[in-house]
Amino acid sequence: MAAPLRVVSFGLGPIGLATARLALTKKSIQLVGAIDVDPLKAGRDLGDLLEMERMTGIIVSADADATLGKLKPDAILHCTSSFMPRVKDQLMLCCKHGVNVVSSTEELLLPTLQHPDLAKEIDAAARKGDITILGTGVNPGFVMDTVAVLATGACHSVSKIDCRRVVDAGTRRLPLQKKVGAGISKEEFQKQLATGTFGHIGMRESIALIGKACGWTLDSITQSVEPVVAERDVKTRYLTVKKGQVAGIWNRGLGKEGDKVRIEMDLKMYVGAPEPMDEVQIEGTPPMHLRLIGGTPGDLATAAMLVNMLPRVVNAPAGLLTMLDVPVPGIVV
Amino acid sequence: MAAPLRVVSFGLGPIGLATARLALTKKSIQLVGAIDVDPLKAGRDLGDLLEMERMTGIIVSADADATLGKLKPDAILHCTSSFMPRVKDQLMLCCKHGVNVVSSTEELLLPTLQHPDLAKEIDAAARKGDITILGTGVNPGFVMDTVAVLATGACHSVSKIDCRRVVDAGTRRLPLQKKVGAGISKEEFQKQLATGTFGHIGMRESIALIGKACGWTLDSITQSVEPVVAERDVKTRYLTVKKGQVAGIWNRGLGKEGDKVRIEMDLKMYVGAPEPMDEVQIEGTPPMHLRLIGGTPGDLATAAMLVNMLPRVVNAPAGLLTMLDVPVPGIVV
Repeated sequence: MAAPLRVVSFGLGPIGLATARLALTKKSIQLVGAIDVDPLKAGRDLGDLLEMERMTGIIVSADADATLGKLKPDAILHCTSSFMPRVKDQLMLCCKHGVNVVSSTEELLLPTLQHPDLAKEIDAAARKGDITILGTGVNPGFVMDTVAVLATGACHSVSKIDCRRVVDAGTRRLPLQKKVGAGISKEEFQKQLATGTFGHIGMRESIALIGKACGWTLDSITQSVEPVVAERDVKTRYLTVKKGQVAGIWNRGLGKEGDKVRIEMDLKMYVGAPEPMDEVQIEGTPPMHLRLIGGTPGDLATAAMLVNMLPRVVNAPAGLLTMLDVPVPGIVV
Repeated sequence: MAAPLRVVSFGLGPIGLATARLALTKKSIQLVGAIDVDPLKAGRDLGDLLEMERMTGIIVSADADATLGKLKPDAILHCTSSFMPRVKDQLMLCCKHGVNVVSSTEELLLPTLQHPDLAKEIDAAARKGDITILGTGVNPGFVMDTVAVLATGACHSVSKIDCRRVVDAGTRRLPLQKKVGAGISKEEFQKQLATGTFGHIGMRESIALIGKACGWTLDSITQSVEPVVAERDVKTRYLTVKKGQVAGIWNRGLGKEGDKVRIEMDLKMYVGAPEPMDEVQIEGTPPMHLRLIGGTPGDLATAAMLVNMLPRVVNAPAGLLTMLDVPVPGIVV
């Protein structure tokens, strides 16, 4: 077996911590450092943050530049923000230090979509630094894009793709339950929606990535978000949603070529959702109908995708890549 | 759009012809030549062989060396044999002429499994010729291996993988119906089985490829084939299977690490099979349960996989690669 990849966890929010915890279990990965600017985290042992019984000897640093420069890892697990402008400086540091990046930043799934100039700049820096940067996760990154693209591999022609995902938010962590608005009123939901930080991020990117894979020129990508209202009281580990309160979100998206709907997405995340599942339906020759029965647990699977893509990203050609450019996902040991 | 890939069809049996027919519909592919040693095919226009209304101007050549040397295509669609020793010289010609290869040769799915020395020799020649060689198709190549590997991408750990496929051979071409023994007696089935040319080829390779992807050292890969006996008369477009006759095959495979069954495969191909489907079940964290409802039509999907992998193979690094090394499948336009 090859020497383990030397990896640093950059960003220790809930997803970053879950990803670090998983990385620590992998023989082919050696976690050598951790970075977070939060003064409540910096200086502490990663094992302490992970509530492990033993310390890891990895002390969280708030100084990314110094840590990457000193450790010179093969790659970072990057979980700091959903938005490209907020992570630009972090990515540039990785380019400077020659460190590959697997990132949970949703906008990086297809960086050219919302930030073409920034994408160009980061891509050039990545090539100059001879590193690869990839945005991935479970959604975006897997169930509503990569899995759909894979299914088209068996097709002669494709005219339309439908992706559906149902998540029972009641089985997820509290921040996710709050993010989907569980337990608030419909009025409060509309208010929070207006702030733009609410709900699922990355549906536009998923639609655009599928469109790119299928060779469609999408003239419009639109989405809508509305509340799912509880039809009965639902109790989760963390909170209770009363009948009539918001149970979660219903996020729909459309990608059109002219008047023709090419891609349709339907994502429901709410507490008490029956029959969680992921589904891709392809109108084409042959038609394809793929279902992940029972669904794909988001937090677990996002950490898995980030860690599992590490060796694929380290071995990939330099640049700011997408899931269309790297080998098929698969578990690492 | 980039210039279309210049491609030659090498091997014009049923799969080769289906693949050539599909390639002719693609804007990003320009079919520039065709090769087959069959004297009944050589010298004829490909459009004639495809029973198209118009001729293509592509005249089938029996001389691979001269054709590849003259046309210098970007890649060939290679559909000549299931077995590596039989295709070695053809692949070596491609190495010599610098022509990439997407092949339906089942043993090429994981060339090191049954022919490690030959694989090494071909890999060296491919690197020297700066070309990529990939074996793929629908099975092996997609439903019972690549799709399973993809599903593990969402997992923290995997302890066992089950792949099931049910094909209604009654909807397939006559050679496939004959290949699975439709309409013969149980005694005849056992006789034909002994010849070794019967049934599905590639299950061992699928098992080994999944094992490799999951980091398992498989100590044994075994398989069994038995007949599926018709419980009622079944009529297909080509033949009738009477009650008590063989309707098709039931092919099972096991991959073990020590005594532990890591991979289990169950493939039923018979005329009259209800509910065709492909299914992958993963015991792991999280468990995953993926189903292709209605199944994946074999001939259509094999042609699709071969054609759809063309640009991915042309852009891949040199060598004798596997589906684990190249980007996720997806349709080409």
